[in-house]
Amino acid sequence: MSTRFTVLTGGVGGAKLVDGLTRILPPHSLTAIVNTGDDFRHFGLPISPDIDTLLYTLSGQSNQELGWGREGETWNFMAVLRSLGEEDWFNLGDGDLALHILRGAALAAGDSLSVITARFAKAWGLPLSVLPMSDDSVATWVATDEGLLPFQRYFVEHRCAPKVQMVRFEGSAEAQPAPGVISAIMACEAVFIAPSNPWLSVDPLLSIAAIRTALEETRAPVVAVSPLITGKAVKGPTAKLMAELGLDVTNAAIAYHYGDWLDGLVVHSEDDAPDTLAIARTNTLMISPDDRERVARAAMDLAAQLTR
Amino acid sequence: MSTRFTVLTGGVGGAKLVDGLTRILPPHSLTAIVNTGDDFRHFGLPISPDIDTLLYTLSGQSNQELGWGREGETWNFMAVLRSLGEEDWFNLGDGDLALHILRGAALAAGDSLSVITARFAKAWGLPLSVLPMSDDSVATWVATDEGLLPFQRYFVEHRCAPKVQMVRFEGSAEAQPAPGVISAIMACEAVFIAPSNPWLSVDPLLSIAAIRTALEETRAPVVAVSPLITGKAVKGPTAKLMAELGLDVTNAAIAYHYGDWLDGLVVHSEDDAPDTLAIARTNTLMISPDDRERVARAAMDLAAQLTR
Repeated sequence: MSTRFTVLTGGVGGAKLVDGLTRILPPHSLTAIVNTGDDFRHFGLPISPDIDTLLYTLSGQSNQELGWGREGETWNFMAVLRSLGEEDWFNLGDGDLALHILRGAALAAGDSLSVITARFAKAWGLPLSVLPMSDDSVATWVATDEGLLPFQRYFVEHRCAPKVQMVRFEGSAEAQPAPGVISAIMACEAVFIAPSNPWLSVDPLLSIAAIRTALEETRAPVVAVSPLITGKAVKGPTAKLMAELGLDVTNAAIAYHYGDWLDGLVVHSEDDAPDTLAIARTNTLMISPDDRERVARAAMDLAAQLTR
Repeated sequence: MSTRFTVLTGGVGGAKLVDGLTRILPPHSLTAIVNTGDDFRHFGLPISPDIDTLLYTLSGQSNQELGWGREGETWNFMAVLRSLGEEDWFNLGDGDLALHILRGAALAAGDSLSVITARFAKAWGLPLSVLPMSDDSVATWVATDEGLLPFQRYFVEHRCAPKVQMVRFEGSAEAQPAPGVISAIMACEAVFIAPSNPWLSVDPLLSIAAIRTALEETRAPVVAVSPLITGKAVKGPTAKLMAELGLDVTNAAIAYHYGDWLDGLVVHSEDDAPDTLAIARTNTLMISPDDRERVARAAMDLAAQLTR
């Protein structure tokens, strides 16, 4: 049997670790299981933000400047949309529309999100397997002081300004893991949890009972990379959200949130580290490809130490 | 009652006459009834080429150079589509996608094509009513020496190269005229038939029995503008198709094809003219706005002479 590795990930920050892992692992030995709690329909098109961010990042098409979307993107669609008086709170780039339109057509023809995602990854020659966490709909909702908001309304339209009281995942009780998800967690050398927002981007995966159970039962070590850097998140609302939920903005709080199944945590050089699990320290800020490799290697090394 | 005028039209050539008519008629006195036989789904998106050409032409957004699509169009969507290995025989511009995506979402939400088209026309402040010929599906199929082809495959993919044996309109027996179509023909000062391809772009409208009956029964004069100029079509396959169908490429053949309900025909300056109906002559080549006005005025004047 070939050596396999698995990573659970959300979008932007997570995709950087996944990119780092593909740089140090043999081609096609990595499986990324991706959050789909952010997925939604917009103008009827099925948008899968985290899957697409991963596809763009891994194929070298991600927009470094914006931090999301495609390099060299154009916005002619949005301009015509505006001229027609339609709502423009969610930006859809012209090139980006290809994934949404093709995904919509394929879903309507009966293909699963897994099959469609694999087709995109193959067309772009990606050196890993990309799996949605589920082919069933799981929708992240954020209960805030301004009411209950679908994830994208909270994240994009309201720019994470409302105070979060609770996060819930509609459909997770009925959702099945996508084909290959459970075996990827059970039969691998190590499972990594990418430095995505634990409450918004990783919890949707954990809300599917079979995925959480697999993390508890796998013989492989499970190592997370913390999204905190000197007590802040690089991007996104992790620290703000932790404070709003009444938590200390610490790695200890993150480790406690994940629970006993987490075996190791990679933390930023000078940050706090809980004494309840194995720790590795490195500069976890990932800007250059070298940064991504360094953090991936720290996670790999920690997993190797933990291998039972 | 206000004075009303009605025009039956296909895409590019027809849209030029419609534009000319709006230049000489009082605002909001014109109703354009548009061919939807070319409509089809592509990657799940509902494309209405003739309606969109009319909307772009009338709002000053049409691409003069290409002769179709939007001015200043970009093609990022197509580039990504190609990178994914998808078929690219039908060009969808980035800005153009807005109409298709919004139409798809609105149709899925239960709106009719009429309602959606009216919304677009209103958003762009068009000075006329734009009606699809029907809210029901009527699909133009072309029987050729290379087999039976859906219209867009014949027109775009095969560039009208196959020899046409017959044209048929799937669904026309069951299709109802869109709301307002029959009253627009029955209660107006004049009905114009735009210089669109009679067999491919006007016949779909005539294939709906209630529309043909209304043309026969209206008290308003019905005046067509011939698409032939010195025995050729300005654009598109009219002359080639007439020859393939075993017809003389003449205005007489076009008048005969339309039938008794046609009261007048505007022909190009030196072309043949049948003696079976009223004729007006002008230079029917429409390049500048002045050209469009001139041809529209010739049609209006002929209709005025014929008013019973």
